[in-house]
Amino acid sequence: MQISARNKIEGTIKGIQKGEVASTVKIEISKPTTMTSMVTKEAVEELGLKEGDKITVVIKASEILLLKE
Amino acid sequence: MQISARNKIEGTIKGIQKGEVASTVKIEISKPTTMTSMVTKEAVEELGLKEGDKITVVIKASEILLLKE
Amino acid sequence: MQISARNKIEGTIKGIQKGEVASTVKIEISKPTTMTSMVTKEAVEELGLKEGDKITVVIKASEILLLKE
Amino acid sequence: MQISARNKIEGTIKGIQKGEVASTVKIEISKPTTMTSMVTKEAVEELGLKEGDKITVVIKASEILLLKE
Amino acid sequence: MQISARNKIEGTIKGIQKGEVASTVKIEISKPTTMTSMVTKEAVEELGLKEGDKITVVIKASEILLLKE
Amino acid sequence: MQISARNKIEGTIKGIQKGEVASTVKIEISKPTTMTSMVTKEAVEELGLKEGDKITVVIKASEILLLKE
Repeated sequence: MQISARNKIEGTIKGIQKGEVASTVKIEISKPTTMTSMVTKEAVEELGLKEGDKITVVIKASEILLLKE
Repeated sequence: MQISARNKIEGTIKGIQKGEVASTVKIEISKPTTMTSMVTKEAVEELGLKEGDKITVVIKASEILLLKE
Repeated sequence: MQISARNKIEGTIKGIQKGEVASTVKIEISKPTTMTSMVTKEAVEELGLKEGDKITVVIKASEILLLKE
Repeated sequence: MQISARNKIEGTIKGIQKGEVASTVKIEISKPTTMTSMVTKEAVEELGLKEGDKITVVIKASEILLLKE
Repeated sequence: MQISARNKIEGTIKGIQKGEVASTVKIEISKPTTMTSMVTKEAVEELGLKEGDKITVVIKASEILLLKE
Repeated sequence: MQISARNKIEGTIKGIQKGEVASTVKIEISKPTTMTSMVTKEAVEELGLKEGDKITVVIKASEILLLKE
């Protein structure tokens, strides 16, 4: 299976915070870089996500901003 | 200056492809992980982006999907 | 493989228009409903997308607006 | 009134889940295809959304990913 | 007609740049504040957008980042 | 510091509503125009956002829809 999104990074779930509708998932992609994703609580439950799971972070190129110091 | 976006990763520009309106920028965040951003050509020109520039990739948590094998 | 995105709809590619950087892909999800996706030209080429291909449209719940008449 | 978004699909609300800030709305666009939108709770209340309402789902082309098996 | 998006600002088109697939539209929302939208060239043509048109800019709350100095 | 996002508008925070995971922030950009941003509760806390703060709203050009009456 191939996805059009240009950005796919493997990581490990380090924490999940569930709200009533939304949830945030913390994913360590390389020490010490951690990414944060906000998905529906339904997605967290349907995928059975839990700390320690191997996961791939997927981001469309058009969603990435650039910051130059 | 602080930004609300939960994801900020430093990298180096490895390539830029300019179209008439849109452009893609390739950023190496750690060997061998490269990210791809699509921004306006205007942004590339206003920031004076070029290969070798140090840059920070910024992504809002709500733009990140998760893929579980 | 499971994806966190809440919206996955199967369809058939009915047309592709490639620009220098961006491309639009038309996908028929059920007669006569056609969806339009904008992805990078690189994605179209890497996935080898062409008219007639079976494809799944993926949309994060947070990207959907609602319009009430 | 015309909107720039390339994707407009009519459906019927099949369920609403309200959190403190965010809400998810389930919309049946054709049997058995249901879409899920995440909007603010404020939007659900301002539009007076409820089960059974006819609604149009609106998605910008740049928010649609493609998955090829 | 009501839209779930929390941000709707009226303005006037000050310029349009068309690429092969994407286009940028400059909208003055109040002197001297101008906003820039990237939409498909198809949207610009279907809506018949041109300089001087009155237009409403629409932004979903989840697409807005905050920057604090 | 320069950001690729084409839209940066200064304003003042007029209200914050915190959920368990997500939060909405109301920003007055010019009387009587108020914008609404949805960010993580974590972002609100990390930036120490509170009513009366001067803040810059940041929006990528590709996230803006256009509505023509």
